[in-house]
Amino acid sequence: MKPVLGVSELRSMVEEAISKIHFPDSPADLYDPITYMLALEGKRMRPVLALAGANLFTDDLSPALSPALGLEVFHNFTLLHDDIMDNAPLRRSMETVHTRWNPNVAILSGDTMFVKSCQLMLEAPDQVVRHVMELFHRTAIEVCEGQQMDMDFETMDDVTISQYIEMITLKTAVLLAASLKTGGMIAGADGESCRHLYEFGKNIGVAFQLQDDILDVFGDMAKVGKVQGGDIIANKKTFLWIRAFELANQDELAELEFWANDPTADSMKKVETITAIYNRIGIREMAEAEMARFFESAMLHLAAVNAPENRKSVLTGFAEKLMVREK
Amino acid sequence: MKPVLGVSELRSMVEEAISKIHFPDSPADLYDPITYMLALEGKRMRPVLALAGANLFTDDLSPALSPALGLEVFHNFTLLHDDIMDNAPLRRSMETVHTRWNPNVAILSGDTMFVKSCQLMLEAPDQVVRHVMELFHRTAIEVCEGQQMDMDFETMDDVTISQYIEMITLKTAVLLAASLKTGGMIAGADGESCRHLYEFGKNIGVAFQLQDDILDVFGDMAKVGKVQGGDIIANKKTFLWIRAFELANQDELAELEFWANDPTADSMKKVETITAIYNRIGIREMAEAEMARFFESAMLHLAAVNAPENRKSVLTGFAEKLMVREK
Repeated sequence: MKPVLGVSELRSMVEEAISKIHFPDSPADLYDPITYMLALEGKRMRPVLALAGANLFTDDLSPALSPALGLEVFHNFTLLHDDIMDNAPLRRSMETVHTRWNPNVAILSGDTMFVKSCQLMLEAPDQVVRHVMELFHRTAIEVCEGQQMDMDFETMDDVTISQYIEMITLKTAVLLAASLKTGGMIAGADGESCRHLYEFGKNIGVAFQLQDDILDVFGDMAKVGKVQGGDIIANKKTFLWIRAFELANQDELAELEFWANDPTADSMKKVETITAIYNRIGIREMAEAEMARFFESAMLHLAAVNAPENRKSVLTGFAEKLMVREK
Repeated sequence: MKPVLGVSELRSMVEEAISKIHFPDSPADLYDPITYMLALEGKRMRPVLALAGANLFTDDLSPALSPALGLEVFHNFTLLHDDIMDNAPLRRSMETVHTRWNPNVAILSGDTMFVKSCQLMLEAPDQVVRHVMELFHRTAIEVCEGQQMDMDFETMDDVTISQYIEMITLKTAVLLAASLKTGGMIAGADGESCRHLYEFGKNIGVAFQLQDDILDVFGDMAKVGKVQGGDIIANKKTFLWIRAFELANQDELAELEFWANDPTADSMKKVETITAIYNRIGIREMAEAEMARFFESAMLHLAAVNAPENRKSVLTGFAEKLMVREK
């Protein structure tokens, strides 16, 4: 067997394949936004994971390529529709589709993008195509459920940590899990290995989102590319926020509630005050411990995958890099 | 073989199967709108056509039932998203989802509905599932293209009859065509018969839409259940409108343009004046001739389907009933 491909090689393969996807010229308002979305810089994490999942078991990645792209197109479809729902002006430093065009264009080109992702998934080989599609559909439903829970949380003030973990599992983690498993299935992996790959992806996905929550408050703004404490400003019910409300003493709770309920509050001051409370309670350490728990669970599942150890190095490296983002 | 089932029997079968589709209780804002949409009264034309298409070749309709429902769920998904884009307050005399809930709920429950339709389509039997899915995806893309063209037409003043026919073909006719063909494929029909069934559905679909255009102006308001001349009030580029602008003499054209460009015009008076011009030019007769042309083409394709004549009676009756709506 040839040496296993690294993340950057897999990413190049994905970028090249994406650049070869062409859409009709007309109707322009239907297809231009799709081309625009797919050209935005991104980590291409889902197709890379699908190909890395396949590469554990085979050197021939070509049967996995179209479904890998399908997962990326699907992910971009969810971003497109989520951006309308979140009323987001920017995505990866570029105007969102509903801003650059309009919401109707964003709805309909998003729908078309979803169909396109289905078409790419359906290019999976005959012997696994039904399983690939079933997993894809189930995952797509779960991603919608996660997005709805996320929106529901905005107006709830009793979100628990377990509800939060369920939400990020559905909204983020299951698609990473499904990407890995899709690659494994297409490469002919046994059922148990596919299951462990899925669980590896799911746990890494949750760890990844927890890391995002931590970086939003404690990360290096320049590296993260977002406003420091954006989640705090938006009262977003992250792991940090929910745990702080659970563990705050009476005085701290009063302060948290004061800042949460004052829409005219100075953003900088709000971030500063709430971060100070997080520090006093030790929220960061708790979030990091939770993240480590999911990371370790992920690594146990990866270890249980029935593939040569040296071929797992890409996925081990990918997961470890995730843990290092914070430093 | 048992006697072929009539439209009302097929519709009952569809209604019963729809009533058995259950969605999770939570998240409520994701699933309640889907249940709401599917419970709205409708003709269930697409699943009825799918089952009727299958019934040409077999008495066992059970393998076609889930995909037939998938086509209905897909159709309702398009209505849900179209209603947001068209800013429509009512659908079948009930509040639209984006009005009763909000646009975000309508976007996301629509997305979920689309995935549900994919899941139902995927229940097609192994030997045809890939073809069924390919046809479904291609059709879904075409329906999106048709909707985009329809929206584009709003701001164009040079829409031709052939562009209009293309738009209604994509927006309406191909889904009827795909429904019939899906039923045929699942029932094991030969490729030529499937092709003729598709063309039958496509031509009937265009005739159906032309009939709708005619009824909007010349129909019995009570029967149609819409505002008389709603298309005229909205400057909608229907067959009648486009042909009238093409054939109007200088005076008539000036009058048409006056009414089309006055947003403050009295609706009743606008409908009355433009209908009078339609009558003077003979637009209704032209639209009826065009409709008859598509109808006849449809019947030729149905005749070419390789199935016993007595089993085609349901589809013949369905098509003829369509032509009688006007009287």
